[in-house]
Amino acid sequence: MTQPPDPDARLRLTYEVGCRVREAPELARAVAYEQTVELPPHVVSEDLAREIVGHVDSVEPLEAGGSRLVISYDPRIVGGEIPQLFNLLFGNVSMYEGVRVTDVQWPAAMLEEFAGPSHGIEGLRRLCGVAEPRPLLCAALKPLGLGVDELAGLCFDLARGGVDIIKDDHSLAGQATAPFDARVARCQAAVERANRLQGGSSRYFPNLTGPVSVLERRLRATREAGCVGVLLCPWLAGPDTVRWIAETTGLAILAHPAWCGPLMRPDHGLAPGLLLGRLFRLIGSDGVIYPNAGGRFPISETVCEEINRNLREPWCAIRPAFPVPGGGIDVARVPYWVRRYGADVIFLIGGSLYAQTDLVQACRELAAVLRSTA
Amino acid sequence: MTQPPDPDARLRLTYEVGCRVREAPELARAVAYEQTVELPPHVVSEDLAREIVGHVDSVEPLEAGGSRLVISYDPRIVGGEIPQLFNLLFGNVSMYEGVRVTDVQWPAAMLEEFAGPSHGIEGLRRLCGVAEPRPLLCAALKPLGLGVDELAGLCFDLARGGVDIIKDDHSLAGQATAPFDARVARCQAAVERANRLQGGSSRYFPNLTGPVSVLERRLRATREAGCVGVLLCPWLAGPDTVRWIAETTGLAILAHPAWCGPLMRPDHGLAPGLLLGRLFRLIGSDGVIYPNAGGRFPISETVCEEINRNLREPWCAIRPAFPVPGGGIDVARVPYWVRRYGADVIFLIGGSLYAQTDLVQACRELAAVLRSTA
Repeated sequence: MTQPPDPDARLRLTYEVGCRVREAPELARAVAYEQTVELPPHVVSEDLAREIVGHVDSVEPLEAGGSRLVISYDPRIVGGEIPQLFNLLFGNVSMYEGVRVTDVQWPAAMLEEFAGPSHGIEGLRRLCGVAEPRPLLCAALKPLGLGVDELAGLCFDLARGGVDIIKDDHSLAGQATAPFDARVARCQAAVERANRLQGGSSRYFPNLTGPVSVLERRLRATREAGCVGVLLCPWLAGPDTVRWIAETTGLAILAHPAWCGPLMRPDHGLAPGLLLGRLFRLIGSDGVIYPNAGGRFPISETVCEEINRNLREPWCAIRPAFPVPGGGIDVARVPYWVRRYGADVIFLIGGSLYAQTDLVQACRELAAVLRSTA
Repeated sequence: MTQPPDPDARLRLTYEVGCRVREAPELARAVAYEQTVELPPHVVSEDLAREIVGHVDSVEPLEAGGSRLVISYDPRIVGGEIPQLFNLLFGNVSMYEGVRVTDVQWPAAMLEEFAGPSHGIEGLRRLCGVAEPRPLLCAALKPLGLGVDELAGLCFDLARGGVDIIKDDHSLAGQATAPFDARVARCQAAVERANRLQGGSSRYFPNLTGPVSVLERRLRATREAGCVGVLLCPWLAGPDTVRWIAETTGLAILAHPAWCGPLMRPDHGLAPGLLLGRLFRLIGSDGVIYPNAGGRFPISETVCEEINRNLREPWCAIRPAFPVPGGGIDVARVPYWVRRYGADVIFLIGGSLYAQTDLVQACRELAAVLRSTA
């Protein structure tokens, strides 16, 4: 392994750490060794120290206290593999305290090794038959505990109401109350029936997060039913499972952030814009669900806008992905969020729709609001 | 879905939350709905509220401040699937603040749905030819950046030194410096040669954490080489991938905690004894690596002992698994840790061995220390 001469060819990570700038150089060196050779410096040969260990590019104090470190790595350490990329980004330092990865500079050559979303914003719009520049409407199919008939009935109503994407709640797995194959076949059929009745083009995305042993079978059932997309929780299915499904099946993917909360704390972890905006996009999510500001989860509008930017802005050949704010969006506030987030967004509405007496009518009114913004 | 009459038949979670006992009942109710139906209470029918929503069994103040909640769930919500089990335990509440799952009472019938470790402590001892009651010695094969010849040379030396398990460093993936198939074949051959030379029974565990698309191929290469076990990072490979490999391949599994740090914070996440001790055991790890107290990572001896207990104590039909303390164990301190942790433990030693001038001799001395404790 020889050194790539171009500094842009290195994978450059920015960390914010809790310790003061006096102790920060030592921490930076520890991180650079920890994440690569995982050996004390005096045991590592000069060649490996130069080629494999991270280079500490800068250490500077932060105004709010703590320090900012920039460490760069040879991308060949990653070898084009998602799990090892994730490991390099935060594997062992996850067990440190007060280390937060806030930004990554990606070498163009490295990004070429990953296909990213197989549809992206444009492709998902096409799949959903929404050419006009308006936000899409997504509703979660729930709750867990309903039978297949009831869920299919809800699908029919949501599709009649003009919901663009009806996705399984991520708690719907293979439970006996609504087994996967029957649920997917019946729900998809219900959506197609509603589409035929009114010339709609709603799509049903079943939750594919499940045991490895049934993944291929459920994929087959999903495609045989005629679904064009699925829901996946990258942190429960494994991040590379998302990439594999994106690259090999042609299915569109909505990614759900279950289990991701602790990874995005303000003093330790990864910036939400990096984890949900960049990494989830890189592994192939066409849309990324996140808890919106003002809902049930603590997150600021600034952070949401950073996620949106990282999902949507041009990024070499990696297609842009839809931000999918959810987690307790009030129907009444949707116009506000449209003004804030623009047209390339999918609003995920759940409880606030189900709380209405007439579900079909509630969906229609909301869909009309979104169409009026085009 | 009808209510199981036996209270022991419910999956009972204990949470410690940051809020005071006055606000705690409301939080408990929110968690019980969030983790199941994910709808506001007034939208959920009485039947579903009783059968699917968690039951708040108790709310009490904690001496140190905050509150303890006990919420129980119908295990049929899990449906025998690991990803949905993890989702129920901490999916959406991961995005709350100040919620920590500290303990789980597992219904016996539910545990029967999971096979757990396929070898366990006894089986792994047999695989390693260590019948006598002494701790096993594990060394990490490293660093990343070495070629196949150099790694195989190290394997030979570590095996000559009497290391019981030589495991790939978890950063060794499919990099061009030491491609998987060649590395595994050559390292395993080197270990077998050393075993023949001196009548040893060292084992080489390659790192199987990698892309989904090459998993089957790497599994085949691993078995064709003659390896009896592998290393896996559950949080990078996907937790259910561990179960699948344990159940279907007969390979022993060492699990590595990469990316797990943020999941085990004192104010939010899961207790380390639950995540590493119970969940990693449940998914089929025969040994679980964790950062030992007094090493490079912040963790107390009390927490380590809780992990050990949860890995080793009888737990229905789920086999006990080896605690594998690592992360900077000093060779000189090993006798102390043997006294603390007993014989059913695997010591993972890395840097401290590589820092010795004569690696073979250093391993032999350490192996002798461990044998003397039998």
